[in-house]
Amino acid sequence: MSSDSPIRFYFDYISSNAYLAWPEANRLAEQYGRVLEPEPVLFAGFLEAFGQLGPAEIPVKSWWMIKNNLRKAALLGLPLNPPAHHPWNPLLPLRISSLPLPRQQRHAVIDGFFSAFWSRGLHASEPEVAAEVVAEAGLDAASILAEAQSEASKLRLRRQTDAAIERGVFGVPSMLVDDEVFWGYDDLPYLERLLAGKDPLDAERLGEWLKTTPSASRPRAQRGERGS
Amino acid sequence: MSSDSPIRFYFDYISSNAYLAWPEANRLAEQYGRVLEPEPVLFAGFLEAFGQLGPAEIPVKSWWMIKNNLRKAALLGLPLNPPAHHPWNPLLPLRISSLPLPRQQRHAVIDGFFSAFWSRGLHASEPEVAAEVVAEAGLDAASILAEAQSEASKLRLRRQTDAAIERGVFGVPSMLVDDEVFWGYDDLPYLERLLAGKDPLDAERLGEWLKTTPSASRPRAQRGERGS
Repeated sequence: MSSDSPIRFYFDYISSNAYLAWPEANRLAEQYGRVLEPEPVLFAGFLEAFGQLGPAEIPVKSWWMIKNNLRKAALLGLPLNPPAHHPWNPLLPLRISSLPLPRQQRHAVIDGFFSAFWSRGLHASEPEVAAEVVAEAGLDAASILAEAQSEASKLRLRRQTDAAIERGVFGVPSMLVDDEVFWGYDDLPYLERLLAGKDPLDAERLGEWLKTTPSASRPRAQRGERGS
Repeated sequence: MSSDSPIRFYFDYISSNAYLAWPEANRLAEQYGRVLEPEPVLFAGFLEAFGQLGPAEIPVKSWWMIKNNLRKAALLGLPLNPPAHHPWNPLLPLRISSLPLPRQQRHAVIDGFFSAFWSRGLHASEPEVAAEVVAEAGLDAASILAEAQSEASKLRLRRQTDAAIERGVFGVPSMLVDDEVFWGYDDLPYLERLLAGKDPLDAERLGEWLKTTPSASRPRAQRGERGS
């Protein structure tokens, strides 16, 4: 592992775990002298690519996650309030956050969006909310919102989502350092060990797992797949 | 929360996270003076009930989980070796583990199975492996294996799986105390806080989340559902 590789932070605002992980990932980047690269992606694109359901699509899992995230937020001292709606359409804020802005302003926009949706209870799909966040970050809201709706911006977010999948990212938040994927808030302590040069992963033992083969699998119909 | 409620430990041997969590859950039960009730369930039954895919059915997620679990095992000082095959058919060991055995022997059987599959690399679907584990726990292998294959034993595992789903359990391992579900190895620190009387969950704030409504959802086809 190169000691100056950035920490790539893959996120969708739809994820309250991403909201909780964002300040922690920034803290780790600062502590270990790494650049944090925000990588906005469309979580729904992951679900579609993998034929998977999101937590919000399984009511008991959604309820578990709310409680789990409220516990984490309380321990972190972070506000976590119900969003105006959930799930919502996150395309506009994700496209804005993907624009090639100066690092500091882009960071402020992402801070602002996370706070708007998960602390201030604002509705993420409304252009007025996006305009307010952009203006608070010191940017011109009208031109930013127009640029975010261009074909180039739509394509950029799609490409980022596809590129993330190609790199082995399957959920949000994920943190990537070189080729190592860390998934979810709960993986942050293992990312920290890697950054500290104390990754407990034994590469030799890992290699042995490549030889394991399945002896049972569920029928395609049970996995929700259609016949080809 | 009643201070003498048991910790119900829902597991399927197919889950390496359950293997890692089993000794930790036992440690917590002992430390906080609780009974640990093992609850064998068929994970594939959960996946079918929720229309969800398991980690082993998404190759990049499976690979991430192997690395994640190897890191955890290394930090715990637990052996974690590739099983003979994965996934496998876990019905026989789950049915054996569901038999109404004396607590201590049942515990020894579960210990033995977890160790056989995840440490000793034995193939979980083979009756010879099951017979060895049962005999090592001081039980009569021939009669136990015959009883495990009875209709009553098959029905017992199905009912346990259904009952778990009715109680809000959706994954393995899960730990249930009264009505509180903790899911996965990573949830153990929050279970411990609850047992210690230090659950940071704010019931009042939780209530506010019940009012949140969706403003967007993926089309049924994208969620892998068939038309009705």
